[in-house]
Amino acid sequence: MPRPLILVSNDDGITAPGIAHLVRVVSDLGAEVVVVAPDSPQSGMGHAITIGQPMRLTENRVFGPDIEAYQCSGTPADCVKIAKHHVLKDRTPDLVVSGINHGSNASVNVLYSGTMSAAIEAAIEGLPAVGFSLGDYGHDADFSHVGPWVRQVCELALGQGVPVGTALNVNIPKNTGQPLAGLRLCRQAHAKWNEEFDTRLDPYKRPYHWLVGTFVNLDAGTDTDEWALAHGYVSVVPCQFDLTAYRGLEMLSQTWQLPLPETQVAAVPPQPLASEDYGPANP
Amino acid sequence: MPRPLILVSNDDGITAPGIAHLVRVVSDLGAEVVVVAPDSPQSGMGHAITIGQPMRLTENRVFGPDIEAYQCSGTPADCVKIAKHHVLKDRTPDLVVSGINHGSNASVNVLYSGTMSAAIEAAIEGLPAVGFSLGDYGHDADFSHVGPWVRQVCELALGQGVPVGTALNVNIPKNTGQPLAGLRLCRQAHAKWNEEFDTRLDPYKRPYHWLVGTFVNLDAGTDTDEWALAHGYVSVVPCQFDLTAYRGLEMLSQTWQLPLPETQVAAVPPQPLASEDYGPANP
Repeated sequence: MPRPLILVSNDDGITAPGIAHLVRVVSDLGAEVVVVAPDSPQSGMGHAITIGQPMRLTENRVFGPDIEAYQCSGTPADCVKIAKHHVLKDRTPDLVVSGINHGSNASVNVLYSGTMSAAIEAAIEGLPAVGFSLGDYGHDADFSHVGPWVRQVCELALGQGVPVGTALNVNIPKNTGQPLAGLRLCRQAHAKWNEEFDTRLDPYKRPYHWLVGTFVNLDAGTDTDEWALAHGYVSVVPCQFDLTAYRGLEMLSQTWQLPLPETQVAAVPPQPLASEDYGPANP
Repeated sequence: MPRPLILVSNDDGITAPGIAHLVRVVSDLGAEVVVVAPDSPQSGMGHAITIGQPMRLTENRVFGPDIEAYQCSGTPADCVKIAKHHVLKDRTPDLVVSGINHGSNASVNVLYSGTMSAAIEAAIEGLPAVGFSLGDYGHDADFSHVGPWVRQVCELALGQGVPVGTALNVNIPKNTGQPLAGLRLCRQAHAKWNEEFDTRLDPYKRPYHWLVGTFVNLDAGTDTDEWALAHGYVSVVPCQFDLTAYRGLEMLSQTWQLPLPETQVAAVPPQPLASEDYGPANP
């Protein structure tokens, strides 16, 4: 069996400790590894892409002479695009992995996450993809416990596959010294950030504003990623990129008195998803 | 009845013609209008937020003395956050509108769209929200036909509401001189960009790369936004921010032999959504 080809990216940049850990794990699997990662930190970039200006791409074997590695001036999503269509061209990766992010990307953070945008971009390209994140925001985060879990997920993804059109959002709890409870399949928790702005004056007496959020989990479910992480599990959420709210379509059809196109009616399930239990339309 | 309060943002920046059209329509509705928009173009910013550096916010009544307007150095999602938590504080908008984007945000473009990230950020905040986009990328795009459609959608959103937890992705075809066919509820088409990179040499002989994509609609459905736009309709797709692939969870449970937490099983519908018709897991 030929060696699997694994593409690695991240959002903390090619020099972050997290990507070095990820490269080590996938190299130990015996895979051929190609890295295309941002040349500077890109946290919170969401699914941004570079439009209207060009990108730089420079080969830089920071992980040693045997690992083909490039730094790119673009976003995480750009890195996956340029990796697939320019660097790899006719070589198709068997797996795309992103991370390991310094900080949680569970629940609603998946939307803001550059780590997951790289993985979701790979899913759009039809490639099996996993984003890894550690619940520790420090540049000096403790990655000593993550290796076996990342390895297990990569082996399962290579061996059993990832559902086509999804990217797995894998979050690993911060190291507490206690052993972790295992992998747990989850749905994305319904949560949000309550934002505050810390307004200060610069040396020229002009105001500037720091975003300072408090994370609030609004979801009492025991089947969520937030519950899993709080209980010592590694959470695994398959994420798709069809944002359509199918139950919302039905509600709009009734309240706005617009027809639902025919094939849609057949496609909508008879019961709403838990995630689409919206309650009545506002106001 | 008090005047409704409408918050307006966009991603092309506060000086773009598209937002001026949107402000005019919602002002004509008799609403109290507050604008918080980026101080420079932010196309393709996806759901990026500003972490690790502060933001500037400057009042600038570019739409006339009666319209409270601010320019912000952040992303579209930042604009909605700072509008809700700093500018408006105790004033709750009855509707958040974003756009009118110069260019389509139908199908997979919703993921890359700053316009829709502003609307989705509002949905996360529990506010009814609509993103408007015109299928014309030019700075000098022809907006002459859009007014009545934007007005109709805003009136429906204010009067009948938007399903809680969703933001509507409304796309309007480019002006062809023909009357439009009406509003049409749709799902997000399954489509992607086939990317190419146009590599050039700078004056110092170093390469740089332009992203040049070709849009490919992979979806034969007649219930999609792409179908609607190609047939002269204004497409309306309710978008949610729970990315969980519920059908994917079931597949992973079988192939990876991991248990599905109990409440999940009850929540998963007996039939897959059309959008989750993944086919077999790869490889």
